[in-house]
Amino acid sequence: MSEKDRAPVARTVLQQCLHARLQVKPAGEKSEAQFVQVSSQLYPVTQLLNHPHGLMLLPPGFTIKMVSFKHDIDRGMVIHICFFKGATDDILPKMVSTLLNLRLCEAESGKMVSVLELPGSLLIVPQATLGGKAKGRVMQYHNNINKEDGLRLYGSFVSLCEKEVAPAAAEAGVKVKHGTYGNRQVLSLDTNGPYTHLMEF
Amino acid sequence: MSEKDRAPVARTVLQQCLHARLQVKPAGEKSEAQFVQVSSQLYPVTQLLNHPHGLMLLPPGFTIKMVSFKHDIDRGMVIHICFFKGATDDILPKMVSTLLNLRLCEAESGKMVSVLELPGSLLIVPQATLGGKAKGRVMQYHNNINKEDGLRLYGSFVSLCEKEVAPAAAEAGVKVKHGTYGNRQVLSLDTNGPYTHLMEF
Repeated sequence: MSEKDRAPVARTVLQQCLHARLQVKPAGEKSEAQFVQVSSQLYPVTQLLNHPHGLMLLPPGFTIKMVSFKHDIDRGMVIHICFFKGATDDILPKMVSTLLNLRLCEAESGKMVSVLELPGSLLIVPQATLGGKAKGRVMQYHNNINKEDGLRLYGSFVSLCEKEVAPAAAEAGVKVKHGTYGNRQVLSLDTNGPYTHLMEF
Repeated sequence: MSEKDRAPVARTVLQQCLHARLQVKPAGEKSEAQFVQVSSQLYPVTQLLNHPHGLMLLPPGFTIKMVSFKHDIDRGMVIHICFFKGATDDILPKMVSTLLNLRLCEAESGKMVSVLELPGSLLIVPQATLGGKAKGRVMQYHNNINKEDGLRLYGSFVSLCEKEVAPAAAEAGVKVKHGTYGNRQVLSLDTNGPYTHLMEF
């Protein structure tokens, strides 16, 4: 089956940014607090810092990894990404190559260049809602890939992006940041024109 | 021809926001300055205010409309919109009704509701880049509607949205803001999870 005959298995929405910030919240968490990761569990910073003993009380065997979940990039591109049923690992190299080499960004000169040419940073945001289809007034997500496969594909996609951006990262200080699959993503975006593009694969 | 048989004539990308701000810049203008509209011409605020005579020097016959081009909304939905060749006015009522009544927003309770039910504000952003198709490394926009028809459809779309939102606007203080068709749109977005959706018509 030729590529054009099959239904898309991945959808991306691309936005240019001057600055973008992503904060990951555990599902259902309402507060705006920042989070640090304590081993595999999440505690609000305030809960840790305000402990009455002045120390962080941790279950035995836990080690503290002070990982801030606030991910910032400056100039570059935000990639909102969603995989559909039928997506496999073999689509990833072409996806990454296409997204990073397409002339989607405006250089200082006004010329359109790719994010690698800019060079710009990447903020990758897993966005399951992109797979939604309206049925009456309700959005349904039946065509989205299952969580396990989606998590694996997302991880591989991020790794491939990091590998492609690595040479520019060393030279120009650009970076690849990404959200956490399956969690609520809290995004702030400053643009100089969002230049929103849709690319399906 | 049934609706499902034809190619889409309009594409929208929808993002939820806690706050969104849009600034319109004339094409090619690089500075970050705010703008006011002086009749049909645009001058940077600084250029007007720093005039050596302390007065704004205007060509004869011009009237000053001190319209700020900074458009803010608080909680609500950003609609990025692009019309394709073949789009006509008769698609607009269904588009507006669908977008405003689909349950795309998360209420305080966690329940998904429409932007009218929330009730939330709208920020409508004309986004020609959404019509892009990749050819090699270059994005092409051959399928986009011509500027005259696009401008008319965009204007009507905004008017219909304003009409639909009017009852909630009076009661709950929500509003409809929009960008200027054909100009660069400078968007800043704060989300509580962008919940990016794609809807085509």
